[in-house]
Amino acid sequence: MPRYRLTLEYDGRPFVGWQRQENGRSVQQALEEAVEKFAGERVGIRAAGRTDAGVHALGQVAHVDLARDWPVDTVRDALNAHLRPEPIAVLDAAIAPPDFDARFSAVKRHYIYRILNRRAPPALDAGRVWAIPHPLDAEAMHRAAQALVGRHDFTTFRAAECQADSPLRTLDRLDVARAGAELTIRASARSFLHSQVRSMVGSLVKVGEGKWPEARIAGILAARDRAACGPLAPPEGLYLLAVDY
Amino acid sequence: MPRYRLTLEYDGRPFVGWQRQENGRSVQQALEEAVEKFAGERVGIRAAGRTDAGVHALGQVAHVDLARDWPVDTVRDALNAHLRPEPIAVLDAAIAPPDFDARFSAVKRHYIYRILNRRAPPALDAGRVWAIPHPLDAEAMHRAAQALVGRHDFTTFRAAECQADSPLRTLDRLDVARAGAELTIRASARSFLHSQVRSMVGSLVKVGEGKWPEARIAGILAARDRAACGPLAPPEGLYLLAVDY
Repeated sequence: MPRYRLTLEYDGRPFVGWQRQENGRSVQQALEEAVEKFAGERVGIRAAGRTDAGVHALGQVAHVDLARDWPVDTVRDALNAHLRPEPIAVLDAAIAPPDFDARFSAVKRHYIYRILNRRAPPALDAGRVWAIPHPLDAEAMHRAAQALVGRHDFTTFRAAECQADSPLRTLDRLDVARAGAELTIRASARSFLHSQVRSMVGSLVKVGEGKWPEARIAGILAARDRAACGPLAPPEGLYLLAVDY
Repeated sequence: MPRYRLTLEYDGRPFVGWQRQENGRSVQQALEEAVEKFAGERVGIRAAGRTDAGVHALGQVAHVDLARDWPVDTVRDALNAHLRPEPIAVLDAAIAPPDFDARFSAVKRHYIYRILNRRAPPALDAGRVWAIPHPLDAEAMHRAAQALVGRHDFTTFRAAECQADSPLRTLDRLDVARAGAELTIRASARSFLHSQVRSMVGSLVKVGEGKWPEARIAGILAARDRAACGPLAPPEGLYLLAVDY
């Protein structure tokens, strides 16, 4: 029974998120149905990141066990054929060791968050960026973000519904850079708390707007208080970029 | 009666193209209606490039005359408000000299054409790239493209419905470059014939697939025969990037 590792791209807009839920269609459900149509098997598929509703993926990783030893290119192409017309693409399928677990074997997760910072709304990127019309100071955001890098108690940046045992996480990178009207925030860590990236981005935007001093980011981290966090950034700017194993 | 120069971004998918037509909604019509809602005036708006159905713009330029002397930021913001929810954004509005003509004053037009070259279909960029699953040799395409740079009779690369007086054009740049799975073709010229970029791209893809030798591009140019051209590349990969004046 070979285990396959799948690398996935998806547009999060039509989905309730990665995980199966009662209230709508999930990426997981779409993928599991495509596997059943292709291989005739009912499977459970686990992914590295349980992305929320509206969050996109450029390099989500999942694993699935199939009874038959299919060529990896067949798995990729057949799943893509059965996924059509849903906006999910299997970029790669590979044989994984039997103990590979897309979620638990991951050693680093990389997210990007895109902000379109201009007066005009997005015409080509609606639903894929957070559109903020007033000017943001990306350099101030970047400086403030550095207070979050390292091992910390991220209670402030953790959603109430977060199921993690501990609020301790090690943030390896949190960079903010501007290219024209677009700000890209890059976040890397072994793992993130629920809504951690969107919580950090929402607070950094307060700094970028000039409403919060840069030092407040360190202050709210030290507070370990969800109420101290800035507003949650919307899901449409967030992309699971890649997962390292 | 001030003349305004507008810089526009749009997603070409829902439109029959820039120009007003009987058979559907055009970008021109959407923009003229937004001007009427904002300023109460029926206007005719002319653009630098009459993009075809499905072709996108990142920096189309148009001009419009308004009776009243509005602040440029008001023009931009009000048009964007009235354009909503159509995927057209006014990136910039500026006062132009009375003799400025978006179409006839243009000295250079820049297009990009995006090809997604991988087995998996596009999930995030469906409708915005030409998806080609079999491998393309971008370097061969680039070398072949250089035969088209310069002043030539582009009859081979001209749509039957082209209304230009002459098939002579000076192509300043035609570059093909790969970044990962994406090929970007950059084309710049004072002006292009109807479907010229898509005709050139369609022929270069034949070279990239290895179906045509590189030298065939020079050969079909010299033939001055529409029948010698490769298949027309689809509109969804084409973007009017910018216009110089």
